Amino acid sequence: MRILIAQINPVVGDLKGNTAKIISAISVGKQKQVDLVLFPELALTGYPPCDFLLLPHFIDDVEKFLKKIIKASDSIACIVGLPRKNLSRIGKPLYNSAAVIENGALLGFQDKMLLPVYDVFDEARYFEPAIKISSWKIGRYCIGVTICEDLWGYSTLVKETKYHRDPVLELKNENCDYVVNLSASPYHLGKSSSRFSVCAKAARAFGVPLILCNQIGGNDSLIFDGHSLAISADGQLLASGRKFQEDLLFVDFENTKPIPQKKIDAEEELFQALLLGVRDYFRKLGFTRACLGLSGGIDSAVVACIAAEALGFENVFGVNMPSRYSSDGSMHDAKALALALRIGYREIPIEKPFKSYLELLAPAFEGKSADVTEENLQARIRGAILMALSNKHGYVVLSTGNKSELAVGYATLYGDMCGGLSVINDLTKRQVYALAKWINRNGEIIPLSTIQKPPSAELRPEQLDSDSLPDYSIVDTVVEAYIEDHASKEQIAKQYGYPISVVEELIKKIHRSEYKRRQSAPGLKVSPKAFSVGRYFPIVQGFVK
Amino acid sequence: MRILIAQINPVVGDLKGNTAKIISAISVGKQKQVDLVLFPELALTGYPPCDFLLLPHFIDDVEKFLKKIIKASDSIACIVGLPRKNLSRIGKPLYNSAAVIENGALLGFQDKMLLPVYDVFDEARYFEPAIKISSWKIGRYCIGVTICEDLWGYSTLVKETKYHRDPVLELKNENCDYVVNLSASPYHLGKSSSRFSVCAKAARAFGVPLILCNQIGGNDSLIFDGHSLAISADGQLLASGRKFQEDLLFVDFENTKPIPQKKIDAEEELFQALLLGVRDYFRKLGFTRACLGLSGGIDSAVVACIAAEALGFENVFGVNMPSRYSSDGSMHDAKALALALRIGYREIPIEKPFKSYLELLAPAFEGKSADVTEENLQARIRGAILMALSNKHGYVVLSTGNKSELAVGYATLYGDMCGGLSVINDLTKRQVYALAKWINRNGEIIPLSTIQKPPSAELRPEQLDSDSLPDYSIVDTVVEAYIEDHASKEQIAKQYGYPISVVEELIKKIHRSEYKRRQSAPGLKVSPKAFSVGRYFPIVQGFVK
Repeated sequence: MRILIAQINPVVGDLKGNTAKIISAISVGKQKQVDLVLFPELALTGYPPCDFLLLPHFIDDVEKFLKKIIKASDSIACIVGLPRKNLSRIGKPLYNSAAVIENGALLGFQDKMLLPVYDVFDEARYFEPAIKISSWKIGRYCIGVTICEDLWGYSTLVKETKYHRDPVLELKNENCDYVVNLSASPYHLGKSSSRFSVCAKAARAFGVPLILCNQIGGNDSLIFDGHSLAISADGQLLASGRKFQEDLLFVDFENTKPIPQKKIDAEEELFQALLLGVRDYFRKLGFTRACLGLSGGIDSAVVACIAAEALGFENVFGVNMPSRYSSDGSMHDAKALALALRIGYREIPIEKPFKSYLELLAPAFEGKSADVTEENLQARIRGAILMALSNKHGYVVLSTGNKSELAVGYATLYGDMCGGLSVINDLTKRQVYALAKWINRNGEIIPLSTIQKPPSAELRPEQLDSDSLPDYSIVDTVVEAYIEDHASKEQIAKQYGYPISVVEELIKKIHRSEYKRRQSAPGLKVSPKAFSVGRYFPIVQGFVK
Repeated sequence: MRILIAQINPVVGDLKGNTAKIISAISVGKQKQVDLVLFPELALTGYPPCDFLLLPHFIDDVEKFLKKIIKASDSIACIVGLPRKNLSRIGKPLYNSAAVIENGALLGFQDKMLLPVYDVFDEARYFEPAIKISSWKIGRYCIGVTICEDLWGYSTLVKETKYHRDPVLELKNENCDYVVNLSASPYHLGKSSSRFSVCAKAARAFGVPLILCNQIGGNDSLIFDGHSLAISADGQLLASGRKFQEDLLFVDFENTKPIPQKKIDAEEELFQALLLGVRDYFRKLGFTRACLGLSGGIDSAVVACIAAEALGFENVFGVNMPSRYSSDGSMHDAKALALALRIGYREIPIEKPFKSYLELLAPAFEGKSADVTEENLQARIRGAILMALSNKHGYVVLSTGNKSELAVGYATLYGDMCGGLSVINDLTKRQVYALAKWINRNGEIIPLSTIQKPPSAELRPEQLDSDSLPDYSIVDTVVEAYIEDHASKEQIAKQYGYPISVVEELIKKIHRSEYKRRQSAPGLKVSPKAFSVGRYFPIVQGFVK
């Protein structure tokens, strides 16, 4: 079989634009005389379409555009992911489906059987599961059609649920020649290797080659890495789509041999993922330019590097906003970074509005000593300045907090948390440092002093993060164990040898900061459990007091 | 049968506190010598427990506290809502269950069969549906046990899905003497009348009396109104629990007669609901005092009235923050309201920090004329002042925007959107006016001029909301039709006779403002479809451009 794996980057809800992309890939498939063009899950709507699925006029439009796709497939076969109406009187009003199209005719729909409802997934909100899974005769081949999660039940890698049915086992007896999978599989570090294992295991179960087409692109907080796969009947990699880029991957199964899997290191992968997330957030919203506060610290430095690469240095504007507590070293580092990246740069000292606020508030603060109020005020002045530049010049403000800080609330709401996108808010402090070193692998871009000095918010004299927090190595470990692994304080203290009081205090901070995170800018998910999406804890709670 | 309906107000996750409440109600039940004490759905954890359900140590603790409840039920029967482990290898790891307890022994668990996954509900994220529903022999009665949604499938009032099974029909043949329902049924205006219809219809289907115990209290954005019900076999109201208050409602079915349903008007109901939402948000978080900006406008006036009633006038602090564009009338109205409510009050003019920012930013704004930047700056100065007062004095800032403004983005992120709780963000402008008039029903509290003057943000000379928006009656109608009813622009234009371009522009504004709402303070849901919870649209989208 000759197949074109159309690893496209749809815009959520842009039915017209996505249809154009689909039809364009179909044309390429015709030129290459393939037997089949394969698209990702919900390719027509983009994934995740969220509550657009609840709008009846949206679903009507999906049907209109499907007709155009069918018409464009006059001399070829293709399989396209899209929602379709459930016409029976029972269940949710839609299926998450694949339209199987051949020679200008819709052969039918294969619906998704396993609907994930965990982490970022809420497919049971919209969809009814498939009643059955069967094979499709396309040209001279018998093709099994599965959609994303349909392969994951068999893998037993889904911790959150064990499904009642297994489409892999149900399809196995159909004696397909090939099995295809339409995916929209959100990225996190290490996901592509799980995905390969899942597919290899399924291919071996079927005993036939398996082809997975994955969506690529950034949609709000979710990044899709592409990296589509063609796998042999014995579970070996035959071809893979580009990572973090669109790709039309042609595979001729009669002339293909196993290839080794490419390995890239974690930092490069994270950097590429965040590049795509930033780039798509801007491009799909129609923005080109970003601004951010450059404090001279490690977080803003890493975000500036990502933004300069994602948007072009000429589209990034760094602002150093020193206060009376800022060190010369930090200002120097901020400027040096801006010079190294060739991004726009300006210094706007905040002393005047700070003084003006302090005078104005003096009567209301009478009898009270200085505390976190004055620290937050400085952060909020900086936020207001960045937002003013955003309003006046059309920048999107990039927020620069990391996951460890955000976890324990070491951030000022409406201050340094201001922004349209929080670029590294799913990276622990450890990962931020590793990324900084990786960015500097061929020479110093981020000043060494930024990497080497102890972290400080510089909001009061001689302040260090370590005044209010344990060492970040402890914070990072507790955050990962508690947020990602759901470990209890006792388990964490025991496993890592930390005093239980330290672990307990960090977990309390995590819950007490929920109100801040609820109002944070959307971040880019790169870990198995992010704050921005897929984690739902109440603000008001009495379990952790 | 003699029953005690324990309409309690649990704190989400506070297993210890909730258990104490449950055991205390059981004692009352013993004193009153009832046959059964009935609790709400997930009474032990509070509803909704969110991702606490994913923590294994949380579920272990639930089991520990269940043992205490069983022990306390040594000479009585009770039915308590709680999550329980699914011990089979298949499906989600939990059931949403009811522990049926009698004389110090756990008779067993009745699991919930219909798991709602729409609007604010995501129960399939955590729970496996009940395999079967059966009756329970408690004392000399045969009792059918259902949990919340279990009754709603039969009602056909759930638009979002038609369930595959119907516990009402399955239980009908069990010849119960009574059917009980454990509920945590989130409030919106008019919900109690739907809930009564659902129960009356089910009671008639069963042909026996039905008793519903509903949670009361505010948990983050959700308000639970209580209003538990005892209904006769022919669907008549026998007794009802208090609305928006805890209640231990005793019903003796041998000595009870139908009573009329109490009607209260919409404004009183909304006011009571918001009171509870505010009160519980503060109480459960351990805060007592609130501050808010008093502009002299209608929104902040209504919020001040709610806060003064909910928290006590001595715990509310109003701040008027006039700018160069504020009218004398507005300042006068703000002060008059504060006096009428006897709340704390201070004027903090923002001219000095405003000027300071303008001077500071002049070089960065060179060659650009004044625009929305300067308007937002004023709002952000006000936000920073309120947050500084909050930090210094321990106030929670109340945000005062309404649903119509928030829908179309007529609000400043990090400015007037600042706050820990957005009290009226699920009320249309029309509802805010109606509430203001209701508040003034016995005399002027909110100055008449606040109600009568045309709405203005007063952020530039002679500004009126109507400069940038259609009349609020149009905005409100489009917001309701689009957000709640999912109508298309064509349907709305046709139904209300509005120009399609006006409707289209408003719908565009709704989607373009998604990024602001994503960072807004949590609001209190009082409509069938709120922004704060239960509505999920992407920021980046291409359907409405």
